Amino acid sequence: MTTATIRWTRDGVSLIDQTLLPGAYRRILCRDVETLWEAIRSLRVRGAPALGVAAAYGVLLGLKTVRGRDRGLFRRRLDEVCAYLASARPTAVNLFHSLDAMRRVVAEAPRASTAEWRRRLRARADAIFEADREVCRRIGRAGASLIRDGDTCLTVCNAGALATVDYGTALGVFYAAKEAGRRFRVLACETRPLLQGARLTAWELRRAGIDVTLICDGAAAAMMRREGVNLVVTGADRIAANGDTANKIGTYALAVAARYHRIPFYVAAPLSTFDPDVPCGQAVPIEERPASEVTTFAGRPIAPVGVRAANPAFDVTDHRLIHGFITERGILRPPYRARFRRLRRPSAGGPGED
Amino acid sequence: MTTATIRWTRDGVSLIDQTLLPGAYRRILCRDVETLWEAIRSLRVRGAPALGVAAAYGVLLGLKTVRGRDRGLFRRRLDEVCAYLASARPTAVNLFHSLDAMRRVVAEAPRASTAEWRRRLRARADAIFEADREVCRRIGRAGASLIRDGDTCLTVCNAGALATVDYGTALGVFYAAKEAGRRFRVLACETRPLLQGARLTAWELRRAGIDVTLICDGAAAAMMRREGVNLVVTGADRIAANGDTANKIGTYALAVAARYHRIPFYVAAPLSTFDPDVPCGQAVPIEERPASEVTTFAGRPIAPVGVRAANPAFDVTDHRLIHGFITERGILRPPYRARFRRLRRPSAGGPGED
Repeated sequence: MTTATIRWTRDGVSLIDQTLLPGAYRRILCRDVETLWEAIRSLRVRGAPALGVAAAYGVLLGLKTVRGRDRGLFRRRLDEVCAYLASARPTAVNLFHSLDAMRRVVAEAPRASTAEWRRRLRARADAIFEADREVCRRIGRAGASLIRDGDTCLTVCNAGALATVDYGTALGVFYAAKEAGRRFRVLACETRPLLQGARLTAWELRRAGIDVTLICDGAAAAMMRREGVNLVVTGADRIAANGDTANKIGTYALAVAARYHRIPFYVAAPLSTFDPDVPCGQAVPIEERPASEVTTFAGRPIAPVGVRAANPAFDVTDHRLIHGFITERGILRPPYRARFRRLRRPSAGGPGED
Repeated sequence: MTTATIRWTRDGVSLIDQTLLPGAYRRILCRDVETLWEAIRSLRVRGAPALGVAAAYGVLLGLKTVRGRDRGLFRRRLDEVCAYLASARPTAVNLFHSLDAMRRVVAEAPRASTAEWRRRLRARADAIFEADREVCRRIGRAGASLIRDGDTCLTVCNAGALATVDYGTALGVFYAAKEAGRRFRVLACETRPLLQGARLTAWELRRAGIDVTLICDGAAAAMMRREGVNLVVTGADRIAANGDTANKIGTYALAVAARYHRIPFYVAAPLSTFDPDVPCGQAVPIEERPASEVTTFAGRPIAPVGVRAANPAFDVTDHRLIHGFITERGILRPPYRARFRRLRRPSAGGPGED
């Protein structure tokens, strides 16, 4: 991946429109926060870490409309923009952590000028962007040790370069293993309803020269047995204090099947995806997306008109099904609650910063 | 369902073209065995019991081209047609059982005239057709006892009226439960890649006034937990002597998830789907269908061009994951090998006949 999934430009936030992949590789420019909000909502940009970066730059976009030196006005607009961006999607916690980090810039320098606030907010957003790049590479290196020559790995959705700035979490593990000379192959679950596995992960892995085979989500359990899968690695959208993990719908099914086949199941995620405020998975808000994502394809009905469909975008995997979390601080293993507590609450600005 | 999925007419075999559903409800007429073979191969008609009926009528179609009283010629053409139809799809055993039953007609009356053979072949094919209707209703009544008021049931693919002559096996259980006044709801897995669940099962159940909710295949495990699923019922394409069951890809994943959630998992199938000649699931030939079924949708690519995809049409569920088989002779419970042995090898002509 040579260019960033999302980046700040003089004219606004530039991002790859992922709804067009793999048919077209096209960037869009969000000149205002409303356009960015729509891009988040409609998954033009998606993936928990990328949403963290999008939220930070989204704050800068939203503050473009406030001029002058009125600090009260500036603060009110900051709160307004943060609340607005927080309403775009409910599950990935990185978005909320980034907004918190941006709000802290002002809280930490209450007497600074609006010009100084602007400068610091830009620096904080850039730090979140840069941290993502570095953190993903650390995650990759930490996880690469799990892959041996000849392995067959399995993943779901897209926790890749397209879900982050430019490297990925679960796919970062594959990239780092390849950079380390490991030979292995990857089964990519297509990930209905929006096919991020087929459209994005297959595209990324092929570009990176990694041996990838696409499968239907329902085939994963059968392939675990037939193909002798050695490792399952997924991303995460929010990890509760006990290790319960919200991720793309279908992740839980993979974890259950991996347990049945005694295949290690790992979650690769930056510490910004951990949410110590949420005690367990049941407390994670799960986004229910429109039924039309299931009942139609490219505007064409694939089910009887009017049929009811359930479309939770995420599910929660019980921490007992997870062998470990691959993070920028290495692989965390059970018991999770104690391990997590030892890590300071991470800021969206990256490891070690707060 | 008021009309038969497949039926014999003066002009050939009439069948509902299921590739057009739910968009269009249209019958096609197969005037020759080649057209029927293509209809089987391309899933215009599908479902193990329906394939049994299709094979029987396919033999009649294939024999249309042989004229005169030459019994040698007639026998050779019969063998040829049976071999041809057997090549259409490899997994559903009902197709092979029907062809065997048709061949036996001639073997049982070696000295009869070709006119007499024709008469008897027509009678045998009609018997297979009629047996399916009766057998499905018996399966339905046997399985209905498993459903209680307030239950949430889950199924995959389409083991319904469209997979049989006119009632269904797994869906027959739901129809019979509804006829018995039971109130329950059904979660239908969409069943990638060809979406038989979305296109056919959702359509059938809605027409029958059964409360149905469509879900993505990957969501099934999460829905088992979230919605408190009480019962999983699927069809079968071939059941080995030990109870291992080949069925639509994704069935195994459901069985594994059902076991994890302690939800009873049942297979509804006529005895014609049991194959005593196959000792266990590993010996069942599994059809690998074109990768394009996974990588394209309605002719449009949904994955990078050239990406590899695995597309096994079926998987095998270990008999230890199956609580029971719902058959026309009631519910068979473990130990299966002994139970199955007690049943005579069923002819495709239906229960009790051979």
